[in-house]
Amino acid sequence: MSYKAPVKDMLFAMEHLARIDQVAQIPGFEEAGLETAQAVLEECARFNEEVVAPLNVVGDLQPSTWKDGQVSTTAGFKEAFAQYVQGGWQGLQHPVDAGGQGLPKTIGAACVEMLNSANMSFALCPLLTDGAIEALLTAGSDALKSTYLDKLVSGQWTGTMNLTEPQAGSDLALVRTRAERQGDGSYKVFGTKIFITYGEHDMAENIVHLVLARVAGAPDGVKGISLFVVPKFLVNADGTLGARNDVHCVSIEHKLGIKASPTCVLQYGDQGGATGFLVGEENRGLEYMFIMMNAARYAVGLQGVAIAERAYQQAAAFAKERVQSRPVDGSVAGSATIIHHPDVRRMLMTMRAYTEGCRAMALTAAAAFDAAHAHPDAQVRQDNQAFYEFMVPLIKGYSTEMSQEVTSLGVQVHGGMGFIEETGAAQHYRDAKILTIYEGTTAIQANDLVGRKTARDGGQAARGIASQIEQTEQALKASSSGAAQAFARALAQARQDFLAVVDYVVAGSKTAPNDVFAASVPYLMLAGNLVAGWQMGRALLAAEQQLSQGAADKAFLEAKVTTAHFYATHILVKTSALRDEVLHGAAPVMALPQDSF
Amino acid sequence: MSYKAPVKDMLFAMEHLARIDQVAQIPGFEEAGLETAQAVLEECARFNEEVVAPLNVVGDLQPSTWKDGQVSTTAGFKEAFAQYVQGGWQGLQHPVDAGGQGLPKTIGAACVEMLNSANMSFALCPLLTDGAIEALLTAGSDALKSTYLDKLVSGQWTGTMNLTEPQAGSDLALVRTRAERQGDGSYKVFGTKIFITYGEHDMAENIVHLVLARVAGAPDGVKGISLFVVPKFLVNADGTLGARNDVHCVSIEHKLGIKASPTCVLQYGDQGGATGFLVGEENRGLEYMFIMMNAARYAVGLQGVAIAERAYQQAAAFAKERVQSRPVDGSVAGSATIIHHPDVRRMLMTMRAYTEGCRAMALTAAAAFDAAHAHPDAQVRQDNQAFYEFMVPLIKGYSTEMSQEVTSLGVQVHGGMGFIEETGAAQHYRDAKILTIYEGTTAIQANDLVGRKTARDGGQAARGIASQIEQTEQALKASSSGAAQAFARALAQARQDFLAVVDYVVAGSKTAPNDVFAASVPYLMLAGNLVAGWQMGRALLAAEQQLSQGAADKAFLEAKVTTAHFYATHILVKTSALRDEVLHGAAPVMALPQDSF
Repeated sequence: MSYKAPVKDMLFAMEHLARIDQVAQIPGFEEAGLETAQAVLEECARFNEEVVAPLNVVGDLQPSTWKDGQVSTTAGFKEAFAQYVQGGWQGLQHPVDAGGQGLPKTIGAACVEMLNSANMSFALCPLLTDGAIEALLTAGSDALKSTYLDKLVSGQWTGTMNLTEPQAGSDLALVRTRAERQGDGSYKVFGTKIFITYGEHDMAENIVHLVLARVAGAPDGVKGISLFVVPKFLVNADGTLGARNDVHCVSIEHKLGIKASPTCVLQYGDQGGATGFLVGEENRGLEYMFIMMNAARYAVGLQGVAIAERAYQQAAAFAKERVQSRPVDGSVAGSATIIHHPDVRRMLMTMRAYTEGCRAMALTAAAAFDAAHAHPDAQVRQDNQAFYEFMVPLIKGYSTEMSQEVTSLGVQVHGGMGFIEETGAAQHYRDAKILTIYEGTTAIQANDLVGRKTARDGGQAARGIASQIEQTEQALKASSSGAAQAFARALAQARQDFLAVVDYVVAGSKTAPNDVFAASVPYLMLAGNLVAGWQMGRALLAAEQQLSQGAADKAFLEAKVTTAHFYATHILVKTSALRDEVLHGAAPVMALPQDSF
Repeated sequence: MSYKAPVKDMLFAMEHLARIDQVAQIPGFEEAGLETAQAVLEECARFNEEVVAPLNVVGDLQPSTWKDGQVSTTAGFKEAFAQYVQGGWQGLQHPVDAGGQGLPKTIGAACVEMLNSANMSFALCPLLTDGAIEALLTAGSDALKSTYLDKLVSGQWTGTMNLTEPQAGSDLALVRTRAERQGDGSYKVFGTKIFITYGEHDMAENIVHLVLARVAGAPDGVKGISLFVVPKFLVNADGTLGARNDVHCVSIEHKLGIKASPTCVLQYGDQGGATGFLVGEENRGLEYMFIMMNAARYAVGLQGVAIAERAYQQAAAFAKERVQSRPVDGSVAGSATIIHHPDVRRMLMTMRAYTEGCRAMALTAAAAFDAAHAHPDAQVRQDNQAFYEFMVPLIKGYSTEMSQEVTSLGVQVHGGMGFIEETGAAQHYRDAKILTIYEGTTAIQANDLVGRKTARDGGQAARGIASQIEQTEQALKASSSGAAQAFARALAQARQDFLAVVDYVVAGSKTAPNDVFAASVPYLMLAGNLVAGWQMGRALLAAEQQLSQGAADKAFLEAKVTTAHFYATHILVKTSALRDEVLHGAAPVMALPQDSF
């Protein structure tokens, strides 16, 4: 099944929701207006549609393989990755002085979505490299930067994140990998890391592992964790590759999905110690790791949008082709294509509305990220940073949960054919399942939303967003269309549900932590639904305005209005049940004795 | 991961909800009281836990294989099936005069659940055989019955249902397989059937295919379909096996789940015609097929309960074992087992509440089935038949949709380990995906609920159920417990939501079919949620009563009250959003032109 990048929808969201014209006023992004965005997106679409997307099914059928410590990726991946590097795609969002193109995240995010729609397994390698780049940019010494940064930004080398150990998944306090200081300022690293995506592969000549470990004598728990660079091959002073380092891939996992992406068990120091280099200061590893992690969490949210888009395209194509049963309204005399059937439409519209809503949420947050990092006004930077930080758990948590519903509907639209692997719909369903787990499960995102993003500031950021939403409601109410009126009603209700939950969370996070954290995922789902919905409401307004001005692309704009209307009446309406769960559901959650399970 | 049959919960539902004491007053079921149920369930549990369940993972890893038209099932399946036959399990619910044990469905259903929890792929073979038995019992001639029935009931031979063709999935009007009358009263059958579960295998010496086909000159569409018995081996007059019939398995499918169960493409008549025998009368095949189908739909609903139970058990065991992170309430100083974390509890309680609710719904409906078939009073039979028929789409549609949410949560509880196939959680997630598709997709069940079960009688059956629910609300209100009060409130709201939707469906099914059928799945989800919830409300009352009488099993009964309380506050609350979708969501569903997809 081929992939067609939704360039038009991305540009619409950039222009009217993320307001790329404002991003282009930020120093450094002067060239990054709508025209640039369009040119980049079209080139990116071409590359992903033609080069990367055709490898998606192949990768599922012929996953990476492991032999004697070497990992061979799926046939074709190495060549496609070489083209990715040659096209400069790895450096798109990274600083010009590190060899990147210095484009804003507002544009970069759309390109990340495309790459992931085309091939999520393939896209994971660049995704992890981005994390390593972020960590080095923030905390790496000049020596580390000069050795590693350019080659990571160019894509010549790739990066990994090494957090997880068999006993330490979400709980980094349990990390046991240890690092011993050497006389020359380097460290020897010993330990086992698991679930290391692209921890070993054949697409690049070197792999730069970013590794969490404890230096001897460090405090217990997360305050004693440091971050190290451990390259697969040591690097000589002239930048050429030196000796093979003592880090080895001892096996790869047999997984439900993203099969082409090798998930490695890495063994450090079995032959005397892997040479590692401290990033920043000792015992501040968790802090640096969060830099990588936050970039990665946002990107995983985009993966949710990406896989939902791909599943939607496949289901829509099938529904327009498959002939089955007479329409209930008698509009066709005999059996018709199944897109005539109301429930098939309902499924397709659900897939579409979720996908467009989450894309709009992600692109809007990307613009806030750009302002938070580069806007000349400190207050603007701070406000945007607060907004962006509130968005990250929603983008990661909500977009990935929705992607599982969307890919499940994608299988369902196919009927029996969806259950047959050759069809390809099931691959999206299997691939999507990792998204609510890695880079922090949905519960971890929800804890972040409750603790750091809501309780810590007493609900200020949350209520600020609600105020902005209220403005959108007013604008919707001022429109005469039925869709806008319906949207205004649903949005107002959802916002009130949200505020009630925020009050509950703020009031109870210290005094009744079990009650509040039992409600954390429903809160996250409510907030994500609302914020994605809010963007759909803004999209509806923008589309109506464009239509009233006689804009050219009438069909697209009318579809946007209808899709927003669907979001309001089928998705936004779910917030009240979530509110009830939060406000009235705590008592039975923790009541059972463990033996009763 | 081992399986422990939930005998206690099944017996509780039989005693207090399905009222097996009343079933045992029906002539023919005098022996089938609670004591018999307990004895049968304990024996069934032992067999499934020890013999069938250990083959579940094996079957996933080493699926059935096809070679030169022969299918070899997973090692161990043949021997386990022989034990199944020897134990008389195939005949449990079938008539004594056909060699069965004549037990009520109330008991049989629990046994079907256990077999499916133990191994869904294995259980599909008996499930399809049950369908063939039902069809022959209802419409088979004496000759067909005497040749096939005893051997199917004993399990010596197995049965299949042959409906689907490449161009005819849900739409049987498109069936092309044809049958030519022969001089001796038999037919020659020609055509291709796909998705035939256990269409070929090595566990039984003969396979009895029930096949839909058109006799030459029959009317177009579903009114021209007849039903045939086409045995793999023809049967001699003395009951011994004769010549190999002209039906051959040309391939099996590569599927997302239930991999051990061979899904066959069957070719009829490539070597001159497969000999078939008409079941009942020509052109009444659809009617007979619905007999098989209705039995199968109920059984697929049980598969949903079964796979949910298995996923729950596995997740609960993992949550009690896996140590990760400090509890938010500070109840443990360091990292604790994850069952201490509120969101893990929320997930486990969700899994548990859905499973118990759907099990209770299925067992209650089974008792209605028993009364509908065997009660001496015609009015009682008729009332129970109406109730049962209303239940079938809910049991099939809602229990299977919920099983996908539950098995998804099962993976999620496992975190990263859930995504690794060796853990086994992912198998349940993959296996469950077929359940909303085969024997009629959720949309097909919803169409049945809207058309035949609601609109046809003007909502009478639906409103009758609402009246019964109102009685349960009154009883709940009369209880002093907080759980009962909370339940009464949620149940009242859900019932009102249901009634509003029934009115909408009845009013619009003819005048606004697109609107009503666009709402069919939300209606089904609302109705299933309500009816399963209603049974949880009844369970809460029964448990409170037992507790007040000082019943022995206090922990079990208290857990039932808590689980019901959770159902009310986390699951029943979803009905209002579904109501809103139905009442206000029609406009945007069909509004987009096809080209906009």
